[in-house]
Amino acid sequence: MLSYMSEFIGTALLVLLGDGVCAAVNLNKSGFKGAGAVYIMLGWGLAVMLPAMAFGAQSGAHFNPVLTVGLAVIGAFPWAAVPGYILAQMLGGLVGAILVWVVYRPQFAATEDADTIRGTFCTGPQIRNIPQNILCEAAATFALVFFIVAIGHAGMTNVGDVGLNYFFVYAIIMSCGFSLGGTTGFAMNPARDLSPRIAHAILPIPNKGSSDWGYALVPVVGPLIGAILGALLANAVILG
Amino acid sequence: MLSYMSEFIGTALLVLLGDGVCAAVNLNKSGFKGAGAVYIMLGWGLAVMLPAMAFGAQSGAHFNPVLTVGLAVIGAFPWAAVPGYILAQMLGGLVGAILVWVVYRPQFAATEDADTIRGTFCTGPQIRNIPQNILCEAAATFALVFFIVAIGHAGMTNVGDVGLNYFFVYAIIMSCGFSLGGTTGFAMNPARDLSPRIAHAILPIPNKGSSDWGYALVPVVGPLIGAILGALLANAVILG
Amino acid sequence: MLSYMSEFIGTALLVLLGDGVCAAVNLNKSGFKGAGAVYIMLGWGLAVMLPAMAFGAQSGAHFNPVLTVGLAVIGAFPWAAVPGYILAQMLGGLVGAILVWVVYRPQFAATEDADTIRGTFCTGPQIRNIPQNILCEAAATFALVFFIVAIGHAGMTNVGDVGLNYFFVYAIIMSCGFSLGGTTGFAMNPARDLSPRIAHAILPIPNKGSSDWGYALVPVVGPLIGAILGALLANAVILG
Amino acid sequence: MLSYMSEFIGTALLVLLGDGVCAAVNLNKSGFKGAGAVYIMLGWGLAVMLPAMAFGAQSGAHFNPVLTVGLAVIGAFPWAAVPGYILAQMLGGLVGAILVWVVYRPQFAATEDADTIRGTFCTGPQIRNIPQNILCEAAATFALVFFIVAIGHAGMTNVGDVGLNYFFVYAIIMSCGFSLGGTTGFAMNPARDLSPRIAHAILPIPNKGSSDWGYALVPVVGPLIGAILGALLANAVILG
Repeated sequence: MLSYMSEFIGTALLVLLGDGVCAAVNLNKSGFKGAGAVYIMLGWGLAVMLPAMAFGAQSGAHFNPVLTVGLAVIGAFPWAAVPGYILAQMLGGLVGAILVWVVYRPQFAATEDADTIRGTFCTGPQIRNIPQNILCEAAATFALVFFIVAIGHAGMTNVGDVGLNYFFVYAIIMSCGFSLGGTTGFAMNPARDLSPRIAHAILPIPNKGSSDWGYALVPVVGPLIGAILGALLANAVILG
Repeated sequence: MLSYMSEFIGTALLVLLGDGVCAAVNLNKSGFKGAGAVYIMLGWGLAVMLPAMAFGAQSGAHFNPVLTVGLAVIGAFPWAAVPGYILAQMLGGLVGAILVWVVYRPQFAATEDADTIRGTFCTGPQIRNIPQNILCEAAATFALVFFIVAIGHAGMTNVGDVGLNYFFVYAIIMSCGFSLGGTTGFAMNPARDLSPRIAHAILPIPNKGSSDWGYALVPVVGPLIGAILGALLANAVILG
Repeated sequence: MLSYMSEFIGTALLVLLGDGVCAAVNLNKSGFKGAGAVYIMLGWGLAVMLPAMAFGAQSGAHFNPVLTVGLAVIGAFPWAAVPGYILAQMLGGLVGAILVWVVYRPQFAATEDADTIRGTFCTGPQIRNIPQNILCEAAATFALVFFIVAIGHAGMTNVGDVGLNYFFVYAIIMSCGFSLGGTTGFAMNPARDLSPRIAHAILPIPNKGSSDWGYALVPVVGPLIGAILGALLANAVILG
Repeated sequence: MLSYMSEFIGTALLVLLGDGVCAAVNLNKSGFKGAGAVYIMLGWGLAVMLPAMAFGAQSGAHFNPVLTVGLAVIGAFPWAAVPGYILAQMLGGLVGAILVWVVYRPQFAATEDADTIRGTFCTGPQIRNIPQNILCEAAATFALVFFIVAIGHAGMTNVGDVGLNYFFVYAIIMSCGFSLGGTTGFAMNPARDLSPRIAHAILPIPNKGSSDWGYALVPVVGPLIGAILGALLANAVILG
């Protein structure tokens, strides 16, 4: 059962570190407020890479329900373990988001803008257009999953070099953000978007506004479509 | 025939991710508009590195007609496959540029400046002077191809370490941009400049202006000269 | 005895390079004044990584009393060597901070703001709240020690690949800063905070104000708690 | 004799790429003017790393007279080859600086400020104080050479992993700049400072002012002292 535990703890750390980046950049009285887009990319990439490094050998370090589904679709992960993985990931994302609030509580209290507060937990589109927003999330997640599946083909299959794979993960996360994140904020992961949105809804944060439930399914549906397509294409042209 | 397919898909991904960086930085209503030069370098480097990682074992991951020609000149690639590679790369670049438009369509619609729109697809000089611009593109591509050919000499010839080569590719792309890109925007690749320029010409983008065909051959001729010289020098002093 | 010497020299270099980053960004008449948060993260990460690379094989490259204690708690370091390591580290931090002053002396003299001068030596909170500040330092150090202990599980245990571990160290330091540093400045290490604070108190710097002794124990107590918890959790779920 | 040739070409490429970074950031009508300190560090680090990767197996990739001397002092390089290496490096630096002018000629012509033009070729102090400036250059070069000599101890002595060493070189160059470059611009290398200064003196650049010969020996004497001390300390505590 350790692998479910690893997915839970790993996803909690991912969201703690990742939404911690958002808190650092967005909230008033943070020392790095306004640090900019490069900060966000470097920080989020590390937020995924480090838990992946810690738990990769135990659970495969998915930390993302749509990656788990995508891998199952191409036969690279057992369907029987999918529900447990998703549950662990979603709970982990919830705990991670709560921990961000615990750490940055005075900064949340010093922030008045409701959009800024919600933007620390979950993503939103630059231009609201649900079908287009789903397409953008699908495109970013397509790239994410395509390259993650492709890593195994980079030539490093002996144990001694597996560590380099985590730096590829870092590169992939950053690239999805740099290239495709300008539209909807590259959620690419329900455990990183829906779970923190739930945390936003239940936490007693002053000045918090709506949790924007009208957008909540976009970073679930888009990533799911993109992940399945990315896994299928990688399976066909890289692994095939 | 998979290698032609790999060059096609890889180049499409390269231009999707690379011109996606330009879209993110340039277009109105992008979340990362104005993110700056470091963003561009980090993003473009990853845009080349990740497709190279995915397809390196299959096609050599050229994704660039002048690199293919340069390698053929020094006998490192068969001339018979050159036309097919170039065709695949140029088509890939076209598809990639169209995909950028699909993803960032609302942002393109929100952008009024014609130069900004064209600059998301293809490069242009800071100071227009065709011979000097050709020289600058040749210089950047010389460095690109010289170092790419030199990677094999870095001491990593066993399969287990080939993954590190992709991080060298990342470093090379970034360095060409950091050091030699301030003049003409370091196109260095007709599939990344001429193909997206064609996409710019045919796509129904509001407010798009001229595709600047007067400059279109500079990022073809310059890179071709630089690639051949870079491959020849590397062959003489590194491999020789 | 070489390992005590290595901890001493390594910590001195760490603080020289790390507080050198702070001096470069903060002091008047520095060429990189105001360079921003990405500069601080990249610079501090390297300031830890390079001494770790130089001395890792000799002393384990702790350079941090709370890491030494955390490792001792889980049986990964002998308690008998803990006092000597801590002494070497604290002395190293003192020497490193003095060297920063030696190198940047004209810049210190050109700086009038007392908080800026102290901030070059040691950390302070964005919002002063001692229990919350201890919690923030504990959280950052928890992540630091958890991931450092986890490195050994990344699959790279043969000598040939140990070099990659130092790049993981780089990633860990940066990530703690990016994600959790916006609150108290991610001291995470008494040798990097208390020792330079002592240097601040004793050095003859014009315009220096208080050394803020009321805060001095926060970056000792918080990191100690976090390091022990991080080592225990990593021992339980990663190594266990 | 190939190794002398490698030092010549490698140093020319280093200065072309490195001073190319300065040109990109400083000159009018460069696309990346004002890109900031992180740009400079990332760019300069790559400018050293890539030639080192290309020529490391042939000449050891010193590209720096004081590194050559430092290695000779500790018996890691034959004194008989020192004069030839230094000559090749200094000539390479001259050629590299001339190539920067060739590539960025229109941008030089569009720049009126004499200090900006000279600053593209060679370094200058933020606060002029010759003994202190020598100390700062010695400190930065001490760190440079100490860590370069220490790389061999990082555990990667088998051929398969030598490639990682070049990423350590990248890290070292950046760290010296981030931490110790805010004072005098981290020349650390006569082939990167004196040779381009000579190029500045002889090239027909409009609006160029003085080549500041009164400062010209600082980035020679300081680095020489620092390199010898760094090599000696590394030899004593790391290799010893």
